[in-house]
Amino acid sequence: MKISDIANITEAVIEGNPDTEISGIAKIEEAKENEITFIANPAYEKHYGTTRAGAVLTSENFKPSVPRREITLLRVKDPYNSFLKLLKHFEHEEISELCGISKFASVPENTKTGDKIFIDDFVKIGNGCRIGYNTKIFSNCSIGSGVKIGNNCIIYPNVTIYKKCIIGNNVIIHSGTAIGSDGFGQAKQKDGTYKKIPQLGIVKIEDDVEIGSNCSIDRATLGETLICRGVKLDNQIQIAHNVIIGDDTVIAAQVGIAGSTKIGKRCMIAGQAGIIGHLSICDDVILLAKTGVTKSITKPGMYGGYRCKPAKEAVFDEAGINKIPEIIERLKKLEKNK
Amino acid sequence: MKISDIANITEAVIEGNPDTEISGIAKIEEAKENEITFIANPAYEKHYGTTRAGAVLTSENFKPSVPRREITLLRVKDPYNSFLKLLKHFEHEEISELCGISKFASVPENTKTGDKIFIDDFVKIGNGCRIGYNTKIFSNCSIGSGVKIGNNCIIYPNVTIYKKCIIGNNVIIHSGTAIGSDGFGQAKQKDGTYKKIPQLGIVKIEDDVEIGSNCSIDRATLGETLICRGVKLDNQIQIAHNVIIGDDTVIAAQVGIAGSTKIGKRCMIAGQAGIIGHLSICDDVILLAKTGVTKSITKPGMYGGYRCKPAKEAVFDEAGINKIPEIIERLKKLEKNK
Amino acid sequence: MKISDIANITEAVIEGNPDTEISGIAKIEEAKENEITFIANPAYEKHYGTTRAGAVLTSENFKPSVPRREITLLRVKDPYNSFLKLLKHFEHEEISELCGISKFASVPENTKTGDKIFIDDFVKIGNGCRIGYNTKIFSNCSIGSGVKIGNNCIIYPNVTIYKKCIIGNNVIIHSGTAIGSDGFGQAKQKDGTYKKIPQLGIVKIEDDVEIGSNCSIDRATLGETLICRGVKLDNQIQIAHNVIIGDDTVIAAQVGIAGSTKIGKRCMIAGQAGIIGHLSICDDVILLAKTGVTKSITKPGMYGGYRCKPAKEAVFDEAGINKIPEIIERLKKLEKNK
Repeated sequence: MKISDIANITEAVIEGNPDTEISGIAKIEEAKENEITFIANPAYEKHYGTTRAGAVLTSENFKPSVPRREITLLRVKDPYNSFLKLLKHFEHEEISELCGISKFASVPENTKTGDKIFIDDFVKIGNGCRIGYNTKIFSNCSIGSGVKIGNNCIIYPNVTIYKKCIIGNNVIIHSGTAIGSDGFGQAKQKDGTYKKIPQLGIVKIEDDVEIGSNCSIDRATLGETLICRGVKLDNQIQIAHNVIIGDDTVIAAQVGIAGSTKIGKRCMIAGQAGIIGHLSICDDVILLAKTGVTKSITKPGMYGGYRCKPAKEAVFDEAGINKIPEIIERLKKLEKNK
Repeated sequence: MKISDIANITEAVIEGNPDTEISGIAKIEEAKENEITFIANPAYEKHYGTTRAGAVLTSENFKPSVPRREITLLRVKDPYNSFLKLLKHFEHEEISELCGISKFASVPENTKTGDKIFIDDFVKIGNGCRIGYNTKIFSNCSIGSGVKIGNNCIIYPNVTIYKKCIIGNNVIIHSGTAIGSDGFGQAKQKDGTYKKIPQLGIVKIEDDVEIGSNCSIDRATLGETLICRGVKLDNQIQIAHNVIIGDDTVIAAQVGIAGSTKIGKRCMIAGQAGIIGHLSICDDVILLAKTGVTKSITKPGMYGGYRCKPAKEAVFDEAGINKIPEIIERLKKLEKNK
Repeated sequence: MKISDIANITEAVIEGNPDTEISGIAKIEEAKENEITFIANPAYEKHYGTTRAGAVLTSENFKPSVPRREITLLRVKDPYNSFLKLLKHFEHEEISELCGISKFASVPENTKTGDKIFIDDFVKIGNGCRIGYNTKIFSNCSIGSGVKIGNNCIIYPNVTIYKKCIIGNNVIIHSGTAIGSDGFGQAKQKDGTYKKIPQLGIVKIEDDVEIGSNCSIDRATLGETLICRGVKLDNQIQIAHNVIIGDDTVIAAQVGIAGSTKIGKRCMIAGQAGIIGHLSICDDVILLAKTGVTKSITKPGMYGGYRCKPAKEAVFDEAGINKIPEIIERLKKLEKNK
């Protein structure tokens, strides 16, 4: 691709040679002569003097501290968004070209499939499934009977979707994730043993959801475990039965959410946080990493701490603990002077 | 199924039409006219006035606050247990009907199999395995050589059982779980590198155990990692090599138990708790969520906290931390008045 | 194998019958008459009086408290290292004997393979992969297009390696692990929704790395997520995009490391620790279990605590919290006497 093509994609003004050939995009420290890089954050300007990149995407008012005549500049209004556009362009289009059903897949005749679907080797599709237009299912996935998957989905290898679960459109699911495993329902008996509570519900995943690798999302006892539109889940997240996650909430890796808890819209939950069961977290809540939530949260804002508090109070607690040695010294003094 | 059939299953007294057809069971807020729901907890009585359910399973002394002549009541002694019975009945019997070995499975001739077993597409069975009566192994599972699996087990898709491990009767294992991966044994060398300690032991899972999705249970260095009768494990649990988990202990999601630790019988361990290696936890211990256990526990009871303490003390700590600002105020006053 | 053979392997001096046949190695409490056990730690000497083992590997100066004429002693300089040598010898050599490509595997013609490789049933290899000498890939693994795997690797069942990732020599990867899933990059839009940031980088795993079961190692946005030579990862570890883990660092189960963080060489990170993104941890750092790291660490040493501190300070904090009730008592006294 020529610099002039990239300028078209990003609506950039060129300073340099529009005919230079660019074969890839790379970080400023690692870019080679045939690659383009970007400076969206002033912290990276220091690399301008030494980068080997052939071209740099940057802001309209970027002023090089060192002249680099061999580098072509592409100036844009919003370098980060232009970079994202460019990433998308360079992203290998292999996946969208994949099409057809492997002869090594097990797909029953009663499967309803849209156009342009791809079903890879060693994929097992259960009875009576429906798979939408342009959806791609990679090798070694297991899809239970009666599952419905929407359009434009990507299911990476080794994913399991249990029977009857419903997946919306534009959903991405990464490897090793289990959708619809039984909720952890065990009824204690008088003799101290446990009897399994059958889990008859499903998992429903709405449109535009992305789910990372090795996540577990359990089916509901009755009804559904619900992951709403636009939710983004990182890796190794545990979602228990009958949980509801509201629209556009993002959750980082290794978070656990216990049974029947309801999370609001636009929440941001950082890594290794945990929320016990039967709580309600309102919209627009931010939980810091490793937060332990044992009570419902009714006010938007930022929370943190081993026993969850508003983040400011959690910081005060920390400061307070640090002051204990000083407190003891002051007590000693008072006791002496008594 | 007719109301009269359901009354037979649950030993209920009918108030209403015994001939109404019921096709499913649902939550009171979601039930439709051809479904039955239940009220086991007074907190749900408020939904009685608005539910669309055709029938309600409830206690002998439930008094409707609103007359609902169109609803048939089924009165029983213990509505929750009757509900469980009914769930079990409505649970789709598909699994128990599955039978036979897929032509897309890889099953060596020397496999010893009981009657009524089911081995799904793309299952790999290693050499010299034994698989008991009525056991079902779903698609894309990998069973190592010399593995023994008992009767009436369900192994969901994408499970791996490494060589020589032993699985009892009535065991359920959910997707993505790895049983018998190598314990984390690395011997530090003088040059700072590590040499792998071979892991020659096995994992033994006794009868009536359920294991959630994406769990890891490592094989012992020598001898066995042992999951005793009736243990119930939720999702994403880490059990290191040579751990022993006692009978009827239940463990919630994302708990980690380090090497050679022994957990007693009837313990309850809540989510994200962690127990370091070489400890002993006695019978009947309850660990709260996110508890960090670094010492053995010798007395039954409830424990919690980042550094594990009896739960009451952990609560006092929390209260104490909250009092630090007040303590500082009181100190200042004393210092002024000195 | 005869005692005399074992003495050769371990360079031991025999006290007893060199012709005794030994068929396995076991723990001192569990060993049978035809098995050898070892005493490397004085704490285990107490079992000498009751063990049923036919032979015991022990130190040059071990003095039995009880005479056991039926036991043959093998005396060595370093019993633990001799035991490791012996373990290695007894380790079943099945894996190294496995060879060939299953007819139930999907391996494109353009795959470049070394000698003595093994590709098991239902393995999917993408286009243009390179797989080195003596590497074994077990059933139901999915290897993306353009992946390079070195020599002498073992990839256990149900592992996914995404496209273009690079795996070095002597690498072991356990079941359920996903290498190269997309980094968690989501750009917030003005309307509150998120747009996926394409992840064009790769994961590179250097030589002599072992990775446990159900780990997630995400591909870089640009460039590479890098696991350096000799790193050992336990199970269920989350490594985010663009992370770098230095040589010979060992990480225990359920640790999470967020995006772009760089960990030094020879670090030891205990279970359930978490490190937020964009930090730098220097060489030779030890993190205790459940440590929460929110700032870079620039000095080698041991750290711990919910908010990471040098381990000694974390212990002082704990002691301080325990003193709060006493502090309040002393305050009350002072206030009374005022």
